Amino acid sequence: MPLLIPENLLKKEGELVKGFAPEVAWVTVGGQKELEERLCIRPTSETLFCDYYKDHVKSHRDLPMLYNQWCNVLRWEKETRPFLRSREFLWQEGHTIHATKEEAERETDKMMEVYHWFHNEILAIPSIRGKKTEKEKFAGAEYTLTNEALMYNGVALQAGTSHYFGQKFSKAYGVTFTNKENKEEYVYQTSWGTTTRMIGGLIMVHSDDYGLVLPPKIAPKQVVIIPIGDSEKVSTFAQQYQETLKKAGITVSIDTSEKSPGFKFAEAEVNGIPIRIEIGERDLERGEVTFVRRDTREKIHEKSDLEIVSYVKTLLDTIQKDMYLRAKTRRDSLTFEAHNLKEMEDILNKQPGFIHAMWCGDPACEEKIKEIKGCKSRCILEEAKKIDDVCVCCGKEAKHVVVWALQY
Amino acid sequence: MPLLIPENLLKKEGELVKGFAPEVAWVTVGGQKELEERLCIRPTSETLFCDYYKDHVKSHRDLPMLYNQWCNVLRWEKETRPFLRSREFLWQEGHTIHATKEEAERETDKMMEVYHWFHNEILAIPSIRGKKTEKEKFAGAEYTLTNEALMYNGVALQAGTSHYFGQKFSKAYGVTFTNKENKEEYVYQTSWGTTTRMIGGLIMVHSDDYGLVLPPKIAPKQVVIIPIGDSEKVSTFAQQYQETLKKAGITVSIDTSEKSPGFKFAEAEVNGIPIRIEIGERDLERGEVTFVRRDTREKIHEKSDLEIVSYVKTLLDTIQKDMYLRAKTRRDSLTFEAHNLKEMEDILNKQPGFIHAMWCGDPACEEKIKEIKGCKSRCILEEAKKIDDVCVCCGKEAKHVVVWALQY
Repeated sequence: MPLLIPENLLKKEGELVKGFAPEVAWVTVGGQKELEERLCIRPTSETLFCDYYKDHVKSHRDLPMLYNQWCNVLRWEKETRPFLRSREFLWQEGHTIHATKEEAERETDKMMEVYHWFHNEILAIPSIRGKKTEKEKFAGAEYTLTNEALMYNGVALQAGTSHYFGQKFSKAYGVTFTNKENKEEYVYQTSWGTTTRMIGGLIMVHSDDYGLVLPPKIAPKQVVIIPIGDSEKVSTFAQQYQETLKKAGITVSIDTSEKSPGFKFAEAEVNGIPIRIEIGERDLERGEVTFVRRDTREKIHEKSDLEIVSYVKTLLDTIQKDMYLRAKTRRDSLTFEAHNLKEMEDILNKQPGFIHAMWCGDPACEEKIKEIKGCKSRCILEEAKKIDDVCVCCGKEAKHVVVWALQY
Repeated sequence: MPLLIPENLLKKEGELVKGFAPEVAWVTVGGQKELEERLCIRPTSETLFCDYYKDHVKSHRDLPMLYNQWCNVLRWEKETRPFLRSREFLWQEGHTIHATKEEAERETDKMMEVYHWFHNEILAIPSIRGKKTEKEKFAGAEYTLTNEALMYNGVALQAGTSHYFGQKFSKAYGVTFTNKENKEEYVYQTSWGTTTRMIGGLIMVHSDDYGLVLPPKIAPKQVVIIPIGDSEKVSTFAQQYQETLKKAGITVSIDTSEKSPGFKFAEAEVNGIPIRIEIGERDLERGEVTFVRRDTREKIHEKSDLEIVSYVKTLLDTIQKDMYLRAKTRRDSLTFEAHNLKEMEDILNKQPGFIHAMWCGDPACEEKIKEIKGCKSRCILEEAKKIDDVCVCCGKEAKHVVVWALQY
């Protein structure tokens, strides 16, 4: 789908315009001429997909239509933060239309499951899932599911959302199909996206004062071998390790640059390479090599003739699991309960984190809670046990368990 | 690199601005406010890379720096053509800086070799290589190498360029490094790119009246199996073929949709799938299946118990080679020689193509030749044998063998 959206196309769905119009960038001049109609740089592509669908869907036999694109979008944020919030960002946006409500809702669920799985299993970022409140949902959606992570400092980061639109957009853009009963009907629509902001999440969950710490499953380089000194024996040995590991599908390189060993060690740490293998001549003579875990910075001396492949594979698995567990333990230690506004305020003043508290469903209470340092609802936990009968804010009957937090 | 370039950054290199300023789109409003400085949507990213290099290069030890990005760029073309010329397009742009002229020029050559190889070996598009004239080179480059293809109708398509900048940009943007002699020096720079326009090239070189014809090496699906009728015997047999071919690394699917066989055949042709396998019940009883080549539309009846993997692999190879040879034969038949303007004009009026003709090196002659239906120099063939002693236009001493053509 194209980068630029004509103003009149953007304006067709009222809520979407209200939500996005304040934060788009407008192209007004092209080829040295003032344009007759302004074009906005896409903040998201629902309007473009709807415009496409309406000419390409005729029958239920054409459905579902499932699209995904990786692209750049732009939102004119007032405040930006490296990796976490930038005006232009790269993302994956999926857009689907379906013949039935049930199928579209299943898609919405499925993609939230994918995001949740990816964060937990691959990025080792423990995350929670739930539904956004009316106030926080995507402009124009029936509802929004969200995946929420907690950074090392107790501030929350939205990490993937999946929206169910029902027929709201299809009615605004006239996207109809002939259903199995041969009747004209509006399609049921979803969209879902996650952004390269997850790189920011990776940094803010796992890194330490020595630099990046990357989970082995996502590390572009899993192992670096650093030969100490330039003896041929060391070099030959390093190459043997490299070849053996490579054949086993492990990404590995030897740092043969002219830098000093100390510099190389520090560089491997900054870059977050999960395992560093140090090979020195004297160590080799003693039949030893040293493995250094990036996550714990632990040095492990091992026999140089060990089963290198299974040893490294096991160590990579251990690092992945340990990183997840450490992040989860911290997340849990930063998860609190509040039963009234005073408790909520105390928590946020002392140590922010995920705060579980009951909510009546009234946006006015959400607004009032936001006055405490900008604390926002992250998500409604739909299947959680009630922790109280009344709203944390107004004291009226509570409807939902909600997770609240400060956010990036 | 970002999508938007501040106006003052774009303006630092004089030739680049002159070349690109007339065809950029300007963002003048962001977040509902008029911007203090206009931002252009990148037409290409040299300026952004230079701005980055200047803060990141210090020593010859940092060099070379080799970058590549796949992204969208925008040029405000007056005339657009689907797949061949659009305002926004997707491309790959490589940017490199080096410590020496020799290394940078080797990079420029190497990438041209990559583009040429990819077009000939993978896309089966026979192409020629050479140097652009001063008039046709990239704005701001010392020189531009180009890969040029010829469409079915004898019109040329630029298909990948590689630029050597020398120190022109590094001087404009102040990109220096400390060389091995410990002296401050400007870096030597290259850039190179090719765009999704090559999809247009694929269509315009290989397709026929029945749709797309894709070379097997680039076809996302190499084989489609179409069962005729819904007997279990046919279905089982189709699945056996599919599994066997899949295991051998061939991309294959079975069309089990509810459409009629005739519709499926036509759809496979429109989509350019190199091989279609038709399996009918009566054929099977006779121990036969039918293979249909997309490129020639030839039907080949074979025994159903043939060695399916080696048969299909050989057929895919044959199709790839035949497609290249057919395209090359046509390209050669559309390659002409002209010794004076009259001959050039006659050729272009009768049947356009690549026209080899001598040139004195004077841009005035290039301008004059352009008056013949917009015919442009495609490239200088640096190692070609002279076909004449004098310029095709002015009759003065000729310096270069040049290929001329109408272009997309």
